[in-house]
Amino acid sequence: MNRLTRIFLALIVATLLVPTLSAQAPADSAIKAMMLKSVDDWNRHDIDAFAKSYKNSPDILFIGRKVSRGYDQMVATYKAGYGTPEKMGTLSFSELETQPLDTRFATVTGHFHLERTAAGGGNADGFFLLVVEHTPAGWKIVRDDSTVLPPPTAAKP
Amino acid sequence: MNRLTRIFLALIVATLLVPTLSAQAPADSAIKAMMLKSVDDWNRHDIDAFAKSYKNSPDILFIGRKVSRGYDQMVATYKAGYGTPEKMGTLSFSELETQPLDTRFATVTGHFHLERTAAGGGNADGFFLLVVEHTPAGWKIVRDDSTVLPPPTAAKP
Repeated sequence: MNRLTRIFLALIVATLLVPTLSAQAPADSAIKAMMLKSVDDWNRHDIDAFAKSYKNSPDILFIGRKVSRGYDQMVATYKAGYGTPEKMGTLSFSELETQPLDTRFATVTGHFHLERTAAGGGNADGFFLLVVEHTPAGWKIVRDDSTVLPPPTAAKP
Repeated sequence: MNRLTRIFLALIVATLLVPTLSAQAPADSAIKAMMLKSVDDWNRHDIDAFAKSYKNSPDILFIGRKVSRGYDQMVATYKAGYGTPEKMGTLSFSELETQPLDTRFATVTGHFHLERTAAGGGNADGFFLLVVEHTPAGWKIVRDDSTVLPPPTAAKP
């Protein structure tokens, strides 16, 4: 192994290890801050700001009553379903928890509650599972499974 | 940088790169094989075999109508909800798709259908999002959000 090879290897090690070490500690608080900002954006009824919690990528998935693929379709689905402040209502999260997968990815679980007027669609509740990625622009959601649970007193169709 | 340091760095590079390169290609088919085996185990009404699709870890999460934590609680939840062959019914997956996160983790999405008699609880349908990990024992589920959707004609409570 010549001198250049050794220097090259040392650079590879540096490239691989430095982001690994620096990303670890503040993940939980950074992810929760991102989640709480998304709640604020939602409750200001600003879907475009809310959408920035997601990675702007064609590969992201949003799973609810169907599977939506990619940032653009995700934004369109939100805008189709929540076109007015009344339909957006007031969002809150509880039981929010992050779990690391590795230094680049983590999962977030929690319960969402949407407080809405009957005209806005009524209240909605459910649990969610998110996969978030530590990107150069911060933690971003790359997978989202948020299913509205049937209400305790099921409505007629 | 002395000779020992260089050898040490080269070993670190080898350790980091070799699993990265070897794990990539067969992930999709290996994950789908794991999923299809779990369907076979379910349809033989063998919950203990089915549970081996999950990582035996206290950190895994199962999200449905509530959040269950850890392998033991996940197995207990399955056994409480699906204690008889009639309640287990016949499981099938459709729209099964894997997406890599990195070489160690991937997500799996799909639709599940449970064909059951009325006495067994009736049919059930929903989408799921799984996070799977490439462990020494193969691909294992570490997060599972599987929510039964309300039926098109909602039943009375």
